[in-house]
Amino acid sequence: MVIYGRNVVREAIKARLHIKRAYILDSSNLSREMKQTENELRHLRVPVEKMKEEKLKNITHSKDHQGIAAKINDYKYADTFKTLDRLEHPPFVVILDQVQDPHNVGAIIRSAYGAGVDLLILPKRGGCLVTPAVLKTSAGYAFRLSISVETNLARVIEELKKRGIWVYAATMKGKPYYDIDMTGPIAFIFGNEGKGVRRLVMEKSDGFVSIPMAKKMDSLNVSVSVAVILFRAMEMRNNANS
Amino acid sequence: MVIYGRNVVREAIKARLHIKRAYILDSSNLSREMKQTENELRHLRVPVEKMKEEKLKNITHSKDHQGIAAKINDYKYADTFKTLDRLEHPPFVVILDQVQDPHNVGAIIRSAYGAGVDLLILPKRGGCLVTPAVLKTSAGYAFRLSISVETNLARVIEELKKRGIWVYAATMKGKPYYDIDMTGPIAFIFGNEGKGVRRLVMEKSDGFVSIPMAKKMDSLNVSVSVAVILFRAMEMRNNANS
Repeated sequence: MVIYGRNVVREAIKARLHIKRAYILDSSNLSREMKQTENELRHLRVPVEKMKEEKLKNITHSKDHQGIAAKINDYKYADTFKTLDRLEHPPFVVILDQVQDPHNVGAIIRSAYGAGVDLLILPKRGGCLVTPAVLKTSAGYAFRLSISVETNLARVIEELKKRGIWVYAATMKGKPYYDIDMTGPIAFIFGNEGKGVRRLVMEKSDGFVSIPMAKKMDSLNVSVSVAVILFRAMEMRNNANS
Repeated sequence: MVIYGRNVVREAIKARLHIKRAYILDSSNLSREMKQTENELRHLRVPVEKMKEEKLKNITHSKDHQGIAAKINDYKYADTFKTLDRLEHPPFVVILDQVQDPHNVGAIIRSAYGAGVDLLILPKRGGCLVTPAVLKTSAGYAFRLSISVETNLARVIEELKKRGIWVYAATMKGKPYYDIDMTGPIAFIFGNEGKGVRRLVMEKSDGFVSIPMAKKMDSLNVSVSVAVILFRAMEMRNNANS
């Protein structure tokens, strides 16, 4: 796939991904930072192709390329249970049930990484996977976070529960997140922007979590809700360990 | 100005704003919800103009119109100190120091409303004001939140401090937000997406606040940072009152 954006390409280099080819804007005033990235790419013997704005837009299918793109192998997903088996602390997992908007998924990846989430699980169908647009919004942090894809979320939740992980679905009518003990093995499910968590997935959960509001309003944006809950969980987990 | 989006137009009706004219997509399969909004508009004697996609896009300068737009007077900003004078509880204020992206400002308005913020202060120059794009992302909550505009943020901060409000600037190296007593009169300053809070504004602050991360990373998206801090503040403020 062709990834784009300054941070994404730099993260791909840091993650030592195999970069097959790089595309850089043909411009006489590249930033110092961009020249440095170009030098690094050449040092790694990556063929670098200079091109006009229009061609770069065509190759990336985006206006957000920031003057640089790179061809890499498709995003490498993690294995759900191998990832969990490797952990030496209580798992901290996030499941997205058909979140659609690449900007939301990218922002969630960034927050999840920052909050110390061990694994993000995406459904194979009905939601956004790790696309170049998601990588762009995640500022490349998708390369550092373990992200797995599963065909049957309900079955995965069953298995997580068997392993002693408490699974909470985020809904409008759940227990306030700050009243939940989030220090142990835990997984949070966040649903689609319009429809929320699917009933089938909801029914498999151990409980429901919500964010109380000061004033009556519709739900927050999903990426905002995720951040509020994950960082509160991180705080609790840090306190429990200190 | 011409606002657009289903929620925004509905919120404008709820807020009893004077709607001069409405523009609705000329389509045979409008949703039930859209027909209801159209009926409400006609009931309020608003002239409704049906038009093709292309024309609606031209009028709104956006592809995100969702089939509906309305012409209203420019957004009515609040007065900073009159708003504070009216409060019967310790003020909870947010200041944005030149946040640029309308999506960020819109998302911040939504979170601020949900977390019970009393007043959002925007600088007159160098940042995004309440534009139709901001209204769209805020899902119309900008009509419910008091938002003021100030020419000189440094002077406003001085005045807030005189009134006993503790002013914290969000930076990468501040006190962890959860270790700050956020129950009293408080204001948080969040800076520009790239540059953060300006030095001049920073110097006026009483202290610095930051969000500790589980792993080394650049800062979170500003709208995410705002939500994490505001909802933690809301939790503390609720506990202090109960």
